[in-house]
Amino acid sequence: MAEKTAEVTMDKLVSLCKRRGFVFQSSEIYGGLSSAWDYGPMGVELKKNIQNFWWKEMTQLHENIVGLDAAIMMHPRVWEASGHVANFSDPLVDCKECKNRFRADHIDLSAPCPVCGNSGTFTEPRQFNLMFQTHLGPVKDDKNIVYLRPETAQGIFVNFRNVVQTSRVKIPFGIAQVGKAFRNEIVTKNFIFRTCEFEQMEMQYFVKPGSDDEWFNYWRERRMGYYEKLGIRGDRLRWHQHGPDELAHYAKDAYDIEYLFPMGWQELEGVHNRTDFDLGRHQEFSGKDQTYLDEETRERYVPYVIETSAGLTRSVLMVLSDAYEEEQLEDGDLRTVMRFHPAVAPITVAILPLVKKDGIAELAREIEAELREDFNVFYDQSGAIGRRYRRQDEGGTPYCVTVDYDSKEDGTVTLRFRDSMEQVRVHRSELAARIRKEIKEYKRV
Amino acid sequence: MAEKTAEVTMDKLVSLCKRRGFVFQSSEIYGGLSSAWDYGPMGVELKKNIQNFWWKEMTQLHENIVGLDAAIMMHPRVWEASGHVANFSDPLVDCKECKNRFRADHIDLSAPCPVCGNSGTFTEPRQFNLMFQTHLGPVKDDKNIVYLRPETAQGIFVNFRNVVQTSRVKIPFGIAQVGKAFRNEIVTKNFIFRTCEFEQMEMQYFVKPGSDDEWFNYWRERRMGYYEKLGIRGDRLRWHQHGPDELAHYAKDAYDIEYLFPMGWQELEGVHNRTDFDLGRHQEFSGKDQTYLDEETRERYVPYVIETSAGLTRSVLMVLSDAYEEEQLEDGDLRTVMRFHPAVAPITVAILPLVKKDGIAELAREIEAELREDFNVFYDQSGAIGRRYRRQDEGGTPYCVTVDYDSKEDGTVTLRFRDSMEQVRVHRSELAARIRKEIKEYKRV
Repeated sequence: MAEKTAEVTMDKLVSLCKRRGFVFQSSEIYGGLSSAWDYGPMGVELKKNIQNFWWKEMTQLHENIVGLDAAIMMHPRVWEASGHVANFSDPLVDCKECKNRFRADHIDLSAPCPVCGNSGTFTEPRQFNLMFQTHLGPVKDDKNIVYLRPETAQGIFVNFRNVVQTSRVKIPFGIAQVGKAFRNEIVTKNFIFRTCEFEQMEMQYFVKPGSDDEWFNYWRERRMGYYEKLGIRGDRLRWHQHGPDELAHYAKDAYDIEYLFPMGWQELEGVHNRTDFDLGRHQEFSGKDQTYLDEETRERYVPYVIETSAGLTRSVLMVLSDAYEEEQLEDGDLRTVMRFHPAVAPITVAILPLVKKDGIAELAREIEAELREDFNVFYDQSGAIGRRYRRQDEGGTPYCVTVDYDSKEDGTVTLRFRDSMEQVRVHRSELAARIRKEIKEYKRV
Repeated sequence: MAEKTAEVTMDKLVSLCKRRGFVFQSSEIYGGLSSAWDYGPMGVELKKNIQNFWWKEMTQLHENIVGLDAAIMMHPRVWEASGHVANFSDPLVDCKECKNRFRADHIDLSAPCPVCGNSGTFTEPRQFNLMFQTHLGPVKDDKNIVYLRPETAQGIFVNFRNVVQTSRVKIPFGIAQVGKAFRNEIVTKNFIFRTCEFEQMEMQYFVKPGSDDEWFNYWRERRMGYYEKLGIRGDRLRWHQHGPDELAHYAKDAYDIEYLFPMGWQELEGVHNRTDFDLGRHQEFSGKDQTYLDEETRERYVPYVIETSAGLTRSVLMVLSDAYEEEQLEDGDLRTVMRFHPAVAPITVAILPLVKKDGIAELAREIEAELREDFNVFYDQSGAIGRRYRRQDEGGTPYCVTVDYDSKEDGTVTLRFRDSMEQVRVHRSELAARIRKEIKEYKRV
């Protein structure tokens, strides 16, 4: 049995992410861009798989949830209606001496400036809007301002009528969306946890007023269940209910799902009862009817909305943190193993010929070709087999297929499991079906 | 036999897209935002499937192509090195009288202003840069300008070293990426064909100088083959070689794959020999070595790049145009049918109980549940069966499963094919495997 050693730290994660091509600093050759990150060959597969896992869970497996993909740039009135133009801001102060800016709620305003050390040099706090602005069209004036959306949710609300009219959905129903959002945060930190450019996975569930508490509880339960399905450790997940001072102006009730990241408990997802605030505001600002007609009861109402709002890029960090383990093996070796759920692992199967000679490599290539249509496959024939296993463990590959001399004789190969390091012999003709079955039935040990 | 009728027009496409929830105008309740579009429940699935089809073709099926997902915001020096700050512009003139702006190369400058009718009122043409600008951080000065990337390619080039160092790739190898890009085009038109916010699917293939012509030809052939695999009509695809006056400053040779859209032949994808221009420029501007060491020959060089650059949003319009057919049926009915390749169709299987009563609907629900894990399934029990088939034809659903009284007796269902309208009886236990086989072996009639 392998023995678990040190807990993951952010330094270890960042280092592994760079070394194995999960996450690179953006524009690194130019010294980097503050808080922007690029997903490398392993990271892009992990992120895409998490996105697909969420999308399948929230749309394909639900008869009454449909998808949407709205543009990042929207009509500026959307953000007046949503309240973002007036309220989506942080209080900032300038130091009159050194010209630096600070979050007024993050520093002690009666103390000296933390950069230049002068006292009494702060301006009065002013509100700084967090939306990025740009101009659509060649003229840069106020009439042409467009914002980069600070959240994906409004793209769903402004399409509510379109979806109702074209998709045969009946309340209660949901609209799901994954996409980028942008916030001009002064303080970004903790690697990919808080960044100016990020991705959200949101679902807005439209319900009849009065049934909202029931659906709120339903979605709280479902969303926690989703993380269990993804194989996340239960003791690193918890609920945090928003107190009266934390509730957003539109929210009747709100719970965060928090995860125990290397830097502590932090929000992973919010489940919110947004009431009829958003549709009501868009009805008011656009003058377009946002009511729903219940065809059975002939009632007409503005629906309430239960929102489940998760961060995709944040989920990547969570999955990386949760998967990371170091083990002391019996032979004295230390192995780093990323225990990704096989459905989200960047590489599903590694094909490893025991030796290159005697036709073993050619046979391994044949088996690789058989699996490549259905799985993300990685072929590796260089180095000792033990080192190749270690390398796959560190990348989180759940299954290794080793091709040896017996394979030539009887057509069987070794299927090795990442978590237990156990090996079984499987006939090559049964390999794809066996791997598919293992993915479906995976339970983290 | 059904008889084909009218060719598709842009009006018909736009109307179908709105009616069936493929594409909505962005922020429609606020009067829309110029040239921005949202993908509805059907459109988001179609777009996602096309993206996955490309991704699988370009990464999973190629041992030596890896993926990447770089941030939209990059260090501003990237765009100096790429030439976009200096050169990515259109010539514009203002009318001094009515203050409108025009593309100088799109109007007759010696003629009266097309808006106010005055003569001699145009300013001299000035260059207008097409990159959207915004400011990162709370201070809006020139030092904090960041651009929304006008192409995804540069995200690949600036990560070239990172990928070489972490991914065990050896030249020739490729890096593939799908993502949004933004261009502040004055003239946007033709529905989702040319928009300010769009998505690219790009692959940069790094090769040894001297082998670039050979790889250029290889990728031309592969990329045309991709469209055949996607089931696109061969007589609507053609090559256009860039003449000396069309070649970009970085290109040694360039071919466009053009498609016969409803508005005529237009570019769908570009295959370009970008030489060592981009890596060379980044080496110069960043001071960071961009050479590659060939470990076998010990040669060191800046690789040449063969680029395949396709538009994803443009591909959606192409697939919609190509799929659209109207047929006069023998019974006099007109049917609109979207002949999507089953691998990209928004809905794969519709489950249709012939009647609701006598336990038929319950049985259909059971079969729906069996298929939902593996396919995008739509359940519909309302209306005459013929009308339900027509509705699925118009949405492009390749397979309909009809559950009837015989199904209760012997466990078989009717599997109906969209293209031929033929029906076969299949046992429900064999349904998933049969549909999977049909998708793999699909050939457009």
